[in-house]
Amino acid sequence: MSGAGANPGKLVVIGVGLIGGSFALATRRAGRFRTVVGVGRSRRNLDAALERGIIDVAFDAGGAWGSETADADLVLVATPVAQMPGAFSVLAGAAGACTVITDAGSTKQDVITAARANLGSKLPDFVPAHPIAGTEHSGAEAAFAELFVNRTVVLCPGADTGAHALERVRAAWTACGAHIELLVPAEHDRAFAAVSHLPHLLAFALVDMLAQRSDHDLFFRFAASGFRDFTRIASSHPEMWRDICIANRDRLRDEIAEYRNALLVLDRALAQGDAGTLEAVFTRARSARSEWLARGEAKRA
Amino acid sequence: MSGAGANPGKLVVIGVGLIGGSFALATRRAGRFRTVVGVGRSRRNLDAALERGIIDVAFDAGGAWGSETADADLVLVATPVAQMPGAFSVLAGAAGACTVITDAGSTKQDVITAARANLGSKLPDFVPAHPIAGTEHSGAEAAFAELFVNRTVVLCPGADTGAHALERVRAAWTACGAHIELLVPAEHDRAFAAVSHLPHLLAFALVDMLAQRSDHDLFFRFAASGFRDFTRIASSHPEMWRDICIANRDRLRDEIAEYRNALLVLDRALAQGDAGTLEAVFTRARSARSEWLARGEAKRA
Repeated sequence: MSGAGANPGKLVVIGVGLIGGSFALATRRAGRFRTVVGVGRSRRNLDAALERGIIDVAFDAGGAWGSETADADLVLVATPVAQMPGAFSVLAGAAGACTVITDAGSTKQDVITAARANLGSKLPDFVPAHPIAGTEHSGAEAAFAELFVNRTVVLCPGADTGAHALERVRAAWTACGAHIELLVPAEHDRAFAAVSHLPHLLAFALVDMLAQRSDHDLFFRFAASGFRDFTRIASSHPEMWRDICIANRDRLRDEIAEYRNALLVLDRALAQGDAGTLEAVFTRARSARSEWLARGEAKRA
Repeated sequence: MSGAGANPGKLVVIGVGLIGGSFALATRRAGRFRTVVGVGRSRRNLDAALERGIIDVAFDAGGAWGSETADADLVLVATPVAQMPGAFSVLAGAAGACTVITDAGSTKQDVITAARANLGSKLPDFVPAHPIAGTEHSGAEAAFAELFVNRTVVLCPGADTGAHALERVRAAWTACGAHIELLVPAEHDRAFAAVSHLPHLLAFALVDMLAQRSDHDLFFRFAASGFRDFTRIASSHPEMWRDICIANRDRLRDEIAEYRNALLVLDRALAQGDAGTLEAVFTRARSARSEWLARGEAKRA
């Protein structure tokens, strides 16, 4: 990134999990970085990342990794969002003048607030980003270079974001095979509260409700493929999703309230034997989902 | 079925959809039936079933199909559950002395009540059944012979069910590649309210909630693979699921009430910034789902 393709640069990934690890693999495969430094809390995960060739050097999150960012072309902060303020503080003092910083957080308003509070003079070199990709698996073991191919990466630059930084981040994600969309942070958080954060919370809640029952075996014994797909996201990383839910809690609580009301409407229809209301809701849902699938957005995003 | 494999018998399928059509294909491929008669409401669907070789003869549901059951070895009632009482009435007067009757309804207590009220002297020849298989697609076009391979079929015989009838139905499903489990009807309806009927209702409710918004494009534009899998069952057949929800509404309403409370607990945790409660629920859910997957039940059921 520091020059031509013949002289690729240095990437620092803070949080070498599914997203950070896959970004390292994908950008390296595209020839964008000669050196990848990994920073993390778990020695076991860092060792896995070293062994898989995802990173060349590993630093403990509590260690002296800051100096590695002085000559880095790009720093990707891919930790759970609650850890980002601490990472930004280190970067404010340590990152080089030419270092661009981006993140991979699933919420954007809180990350931007943390960046403004902690990045100091490096704020113009920070590009808030959210790759819309993932699986229910986590850690460096789950990383793969193709994760972002044909996926969307949302960038939320603000008035304080430098054009040069934005172009560098855009180019890195494009090199991973992703499409770029720009969104205002508030719109981002509102959209993802509804289509990502709420569904995760709903899936976690259902599995836990059944697991808590003394006769849970009866239920899991007969759960089939519909349940398996519905609850796939309940296998997601608990800490990551805890942080996302807390970070975006105002929007998420609005969604929960509206959804609980929607369930109340269905419950009343059931109480009254009102088959027409049920069929109307189910029919509208099926149509909307068919149209969505037909537009091809399910594959792209 | 009427004798040795060299002289296979006659199957009548009432409701030649995904389940009825797949059963016809699978049992025919296993050499169990020489003739398959299809009964349905939609001429277009029956024509598709004829064209695909799923059935040999087609009757309109309002037509004189009853006489076809006089020499049938097996009648499968695979309509939405609300249509079963009418089918049972016809069968009470028309089915032969040696004809065994079964169903494929996703609820069992209501089907058994309808059978008791309408099947008359044919009640001992009726075996309540529920194949735990399906996709979000419907109709004869979606049918395929492998649908039941390694899937579970729940049978709910009562004190009034004849041993001969039970064996014939068990053998037919086994020939389709399915495993048989026996359950008391009340247990069946309780289990499936939680692991099937509630998730379907939840998925329909979420998609409809978003579709109803004036700015729904923003949401669907960013919905990704997690949303796609979570809502797959919201592409299921609206009328079929309307009938299932109404038929099992008492258990389903209990599940809705408990689930709404579970969401309220999470909402309160969000309001209080109680990250510990969120992480505990998410962690328990992930563990329970991992254990379930490890037991291999997700594949089998």
